[in-house]
Amino acid sequence: MSDLLQTVRGLAKKTDSKILMVVLDGVGGLPMTVNGETELATAKTPNLDALARESQLGQVELIGAGITPGSGPGHLSLFGYDPLHYLVGRGALSAVGIGVKLNKGDVAVRGNFATLGADRIVEDRRAGRPSDEKNAEVVARLKTAIPEIDGVPVEIYTESEHRFVVVFRAGNGGDLGANLSDVDPQTTGVQPMTATAHDAPSEKTAALVNAFVQRAEEALGDDPQVNGVLFRGYSDVPHFPSFEDAYQLNAACIASYPMYKGLASLVGMEVLDVEGEEDALDGKVQALTRHWAEYDFFFLHIKKTDSTGEDGDFAAKVKKIELFDALLPRLLALQPDVFCVVGDHSTPSKLSAHSWHPVPVLIHSEYGRKDAAVRYTEEEAARGSLGLRRGTDLMPLLMANALKLNKYGA
Amino acid sequence: MSDLLQTVRGLAKKTDSKILMVVLDGVGGLPMTVNGETELATAKTPNLDALARESQLGQVELIGAGITPGSGPGHLSLFGYDPLHYLVGRGALSAVGIGVKLNKGDVAVRGNFATLGADRIVEDRRAGRPSDEKNAEVVARLKTAIPEIDGVPVEIYTESEHRFVVVFRAGNGGDLGANLSDVDPQTTGVQPMTATAHDAPSEKTAALVNAFVQRAEEALGDDPQVNGVLFRGYSDVPHFPSFEDAYQLNAACIASYPMYKGLASLVGMEVLDVEGEEDALDGKVQALTRHWAEYDFFFLHIKKTDSTGEDGDFAAKVKKIELFDALLPRLLALQPDVFCVVGDHSTPSKLSAHSWHPVPVLIHSEYGRKDAAVRYTEEEAARGSLGLRRGTDLMPLLMANALKLNKYGA
Repeated sequence: MSDLLQTVRGLAKKTDSKILMVVLDGVGGLPMTVNGETELATAKTPNLDALARESQLGQVELIGAGITPGSGPGHLSLFGYDPLHYLVGRGALSAVGIGVKLNKGDVAVRGNFATLGADRIVEDRRAGRPSDEKNAEVVARLKTAIPEIDGVPVEIYTESEHRFVVVFRAGNGGDLGANLSDVDPQTTGVQPMTATAHDAPSEKTAALVNAFVQRAEEALGDDPQVNGVLFRGYSDVPHFPSFEDAYQLNAACIASYPMYKGLASLVGMEVLDVEGEEDALDGKVQALTRHWAEYDFFFLHIKKTDSTGEDGDFAAKVKKIELFDALLPRLLALQPDVFCVVGDHSTPSKLSAHSWHPVPVLIHSEYGRKDAAVRYTEEEAARGSLGLRRGTDLMPLLMANALKLNKYGA
Repeated sequence: MSDLLQTVRGLAKKTDSKILMVVLDGVGGLPMTVNGETELATAKTPNLDALARESQLGQVELIGAGITPGSGPGHLSLFGYDPLHYLVGRGALSAVGIGVKLNKGDVAVRGNFATLGADRIVEDRRAGRPSDEKNAEVVARLKTAIPEIDGVPVEIYTESEHRFVVVFRAGNGGDLGANLSDVDPQTTGVQPMTATAHDAPSEKTAALVNAFVQRAEEALGDDPQVNGVLFRGYSDVPHFPSFEDAYQLNAACIASYPMYKGLASLVGMEVLDVEGEEDALDGKVQALTRHWAEYDFFFLHIKKTDSTGEDGDFAAKVKKIELFDALLPRLLALQPDVFCVVGDHSTPSKLSAHSWHPVPVLIHSEYGRKDAAVRYTEEEAARGSLGLRRGTDLMPLLMANALKLNKYGA
């Protein structure tokens, strides 16, 4: 651990003040035409506008200039963990993404289904991109065929198309290492590779992986298309300082999607139950209100601003922003000492994808200077007094505004 | 040494141009009410306003986002030394704070007076917080009782209440190490700890510390309250490249308080005598004028902008800013090639304390671009063309504007 987080960790103190961080997933946008308005600028947001007039605005770049963040690194940055420093392996991120909790000593592995021809030669590294239904069928067959190997419990999870995840549980057989070579040859026309351990604790993992490959091929041998597995990316559980350890914060997560719950639990947040439909805003506010007294930091995640952007549906994204705006008074009524609205990355409808553009951030606290902003938009944020910052600056700023940081040095 | 300082050091060259850096201690502020005006914005500053119209403005963050700087780290940052990298120990900082110069091989130690009960059990780690007068009396007794130990000169200095500083002088007995364990048990109900060396050069220091503790207890045994000493934080002299070495600058300090003189001498500045009352602005201008021909860099420190902020006295802070404004023409009459106004941290009257808020910075030189600023205020600075920067960016900018840096690369 280096950097600002380490410094903040040494200064953090427990107080009664409360911080509420709302992440509007993918909220930053783009105009559809040159000099047009973004989704945020187009949306009618009277409540956000009023709040902006009493807040400080700025822009955050979650990873670095020009870098488009995935949801994992984007959130890690918002939580104050430099995603270039605090690495989450591909296997662990996949596990987190489907809501599977990794424990110490477990190893998660990213798998691809493949098509093998005569003599185990890889013909297609993605098995012709099977449907999600076919994927689930194959996973079910493998679950029956490989419930355990040598007494080590084996869990197999469907992802989508050709992708699946395997978790080898440490159980009472001792911790498993994650330092071994890939099975995926990254090319066709050759056989799958044999996994080789790079250190002693990974020898058992290599044996498990190679046994899994063999038994999977036996189990799937009658399928002409999906009849092999390739592994790439092994991870054990990431070793992060928790929110409690880093910030002295008793933190709670209010989210609907497994990925965000998983990321929050990775940093030690308590994941609260949310009732109602998958992205029910009302259920989230109810959960927040119900647990308000119990925690001093809340991460409230709202997904649909991203999904609509990913769909390239400008009007729908505008609508989702307006739905959040309508909700805002109920959040402010709880009177958080520090209230923040931000995104984990931009998702412009124009791109139908995540993008590298900085995300507007708004911080409301009693200890802010006057800022000329009158709305929460990309354009106002670019002129905001908080300036253009790394995403990892956000948590220290929220902590400072909550008067939860001691002075550095005399 | 890493970072920008190392690069600048390789490019610095000696020229005739002169740089004047004025540090208005704790100058950054906050409005007392939402969207109100800060101390700087409230002050009537016709001279600063006129200067701002011909200068470049920006904001500096001395340590990092959300981090409230102490005076030591704040000034180190202004001087171009990253305070997270160039560490000054607690003992050295205390020595510096009371104006005691450490030499190579010396060790400075922070001490607390304590109340010991039967069997040397620590009853109060701060000896009931004695008055400063009582502190001075006890220090006088210790000075008589412990002028030296084993031929090593011992200096004892009063700080305030329960705090004092001991300096063990290397003398001709060889250099002393500063890597040893504390005497302070950090709790009551136990005996003081015995200092233990963590490396060979610190073995002699540990013996000196333990002997000091024993002799102090003997000397103070008849006092029921202040009858023991606890040590915590040992430091040798920090190893910084000097201003001459880093910047090829022949630098002078004009300050009234020991802390700032000490910090300046730590980086090799010549500390000039200032006549008149403790924070006499007139005496400072006289010293500056008298020595103007002799140096090519001047650090002029003004304290009262901080003290009034610490007192929570908004009106008084405004007044101190106006006093500086009245002085400004006399400084500008010296025609420095580069003139800079900045603070070492913010001290909002609203908080009655140092704060994390960025500090407005103004740079005036012949080589600045047009900037829209019309006043030196936090709000104008937030829109300034220099942007939001780390404090360690300032010295390279001043050096560049003084045409004292060679090109990097061909």
